[in-house]
Amino acid sequence: MEPLILLGDNEASLRLRRMASLLDSTGTDAVLITGNADKYYLTGRVFSGWLLVSREGLIRAFVKRPVSLQGNNIVSVRKPEEIILPDTISTLGLGLTTLNTADYLRLATHFQGIRLTDCSGIMRSARAVKTPYETELIRRSGQMHEQVYRLIPSLYRPGMTDLQLQIEIEHALRSAGCLGQFRISGDSMELFMGNILAGDNADTPSPYDFAMGGGGQHPSLPVGADGTVISPGMSVMVDANGNFTGYMTDMTRTFALGKLTPLALKAHQCSVNICHRLSAAMVPGAKAADLYREASAIACENGLGDFFMGHRQKAGFIGHGVGIEVNESPVIAPKSRDIIMEGNIIALEPKFVIPGTGAVGIENTYCVTDAGTECLTNAPEEIIALS
Amino acid sequence: MEPLILLGDNEASLRLRRMASLLDSTGTDAVLITGNADKYYLTGRVFSGWLLVSREGLIRAFVKRPVSLQGNNIVSVRKPEEIILPDTISTLGLGLTTLNTADYLRLATHFQGIRLTDCSGIMRSARAVKTPYETELIRRSGQMHEQVYRLIPSLYRPGMTDLQLQIEIEHALRSAGCLGQFRISGDSMELFMGNILAGDNADTPSPYDFAMGGGGQHPSLPVGADGTVISPGMSVMVDANGNFTGYMTDMTRTFALGKLTPLALKAHQCSVNICHRLSAAMVPGAKAADLYREASAIACENGLGDFFMGHRQKAGFIGHGVGIEVNESPVIAPKSRDIIMEGNIIALEPKFVIPGTGAVGIENTYCVTDAGTECLTNAPEEIIALS
Repeated sequence: MEPLILLGDNEASLRLRRMASLLDSTGTDAVLITGNADKYYLTGRVFSGWLLVSREGLIRAFVKRPVSLQGNNIVSVRKPEEIILPDTISTLGLGLTTLNTADYLRLATHFQGIRLTDCSGIMRSARAVKTPYETELIRRSGQMHEQVYRLIPSLYRPGMTDLQLQIEIEHALRSAGCLGQFRISGDSMELFMGNILAGDNADTPSPYDFAMGGGGQHPSLPVGADGTVISPGMSVMVDANGNFTGYMTDMTRTFALGKLTPLALKAHQCSVNICHRLSAAMVPGAKAADLYREASAIACENGLGDFFMGHRQKAGFIGHGVGIEVNESPVIAPKSRDIIMEGNIIALEPKFVIPGTGAVGIENTYCVTDAGTECLTNAPEEIIALS
Repeated sequence: MEPLILLGDNEASLRLRRMASLLDSTGTDAVLITGNADKYYLTGRVFSGWLLVSREGLIRAFVKRPVSLQGNNIVSVRKPEEIILPDTISTLGLGLTTLNTADYLRLATHFQGIRLTDCSGIMRSARAVKTPYETELIRRSGQMHEQVYRLIPSLYRPGMTDLQLQIEIEHALRSAGCLGQFRISGDSMELFMGNILAGDNADTPSPYDFAMGGGGQHPSLPVGADGTVISPGMSVMVDANGNFTGYMTDMTRTFALGKLTPLALKAHQCSVNICHRLSAAMVPGAKAADLYREASAIACENGLGDFFMGHRQKAGFIGHGVGIEVNESPVIAPKSRDIIMEGNIIALEPKFVIPGTGAVGIENTYCVTDAGTECLTNAPEEIIALS
């Protein structure tokens, strides 16, 4: 008998109570969870199968694998048609933004007579407000993340390409306990262990909705480092995987070989200023769209609008929630309707791409509290010399 | 003006002709491709948006990102409602096993009056038969993959854990040009850079449908190396990422510290024998289910049935197609209806888990030709000493 829930009792009931209140407010009797990230959120483990969570706090797993997972509230199944719901459930939420259509159609046939709704919003809302324990896991990731970033200048060797430096950073991250897996919600964005951009490669548009692009190593994965030799006058922006605890921090720092232009230095300082200004403004009740506008205004006042959040191709946001996945709620974007809440963990990344130099700026992950924001990624914010 | 298709003209038309014939035989007018792997197959690139391929060979991209992708047959769009189909299309295939339900429902609303079908099978069939150029890319991956495997004994240091060895293997793979990204079809299987299993950790059931399990480093990613110190009498099975060219090889080799038991040595030899036997039987027209049965019979005749394809938890297959993703068609499993075809690239992995020792056996990637199978992963097959 293995327990289904690997979280402590208090922690599990905090998360379940939050789910219950969201189910209540949306008139949903229960949700049937199919995605790994949501299963991990609610049970502290990943398994193959389905997880049922009802308004009454009932939690039951229908498990295909591992076969060793057996016990209270665990039903071994081979296929979705073996899922039996309690009679009390007449409205069932499914995560339609992640569930594939073939599985959905099969479940819809099986659950005839039950009203199916999209619970993606419920899950995003639940996970956007972290518990103190989740915040502590992210804080720990931030500490380890920061230690590796401090090593980066010692990993650089003259003549290196961006990719060679990236491989050494990956090795340092993994050696310090990074789990490697970079969880991104949605199936269309692919990135391996992070994005290292040297020089003008930062201005190459990528297909993915990350804040920065890069041409990438290969057309099958067109993002990030492209083999550019790191040369004097270039910036090297490092935005690498901070998943040390199942919960990740997102942190970017800018390194440079030799002296950067006054424009690049000014843009970097502007990014630091925006982070400090927004982290002060990021209080419970603040509107995400207002925060975006404030950041954009600061960039424009400094004459840096053309370079803000990309040059040839611009990103549509300057910040986002972080947790089990790297793209959670809230989203700090011009049309966002999100309101900042206590317990949000938000990465702010007001970056610039300066032609002839590369990307500059920083990204920090912050925790929103009633007593002000706490920065969870405390590596030095200035441009760091590589030689 | 950037060309949509990065493949050579002959290569692109080979793949399009194969698509046209599959569309014809299923009565599908066109498919609208949403997944990265299928886009890469048909164009040699990845972009954000949708790719239309019709029976007449028409290929048109509706592109969100990168903004630099503009030119013939490329339409810039911001949302799916801007996709305009030619009037001739009345039956449209969508990849329902990968397309998320929310996007499907949105497309279905937009395409009212058009019959929507599931084209997942068409895409699996198309990609299961590799062109000579695709086979050459996989052959090249195999050569680089093999070179890294030959380095593994030199990466081992006494006292290492499985995870420490894995990190050095990852570094060697990346340094040799491995792209890192490990493409798996479907959204529920997660694995970072491969699976390294030392000793009894190989017998820990995992939630994923990989051939071997392992407890993993962390409950958020419960598969593979778990921090076991590599000790005398243990096997160390290495099944690591072979994606060097956008197309991958799948290869497993067994290493050992000190002497393994006679049972483990016998099982390893049995795995090698099954690979050789099946690679000879894997001719065009052979039935995948028959191949599975033959492998299973050899294991049982040798008294190794209890250990074949796992011990506490067993995998349901002994082989699978490999290409852009690691789990392509055909599948070598007891109930598979797949028939082996010329041009299939198939990984065979008849493995054993021996309690007290760990996992033993090999995995090779083979190309099926009319003149016999070609092994694309030619590292030594015997158990390799780590010290």
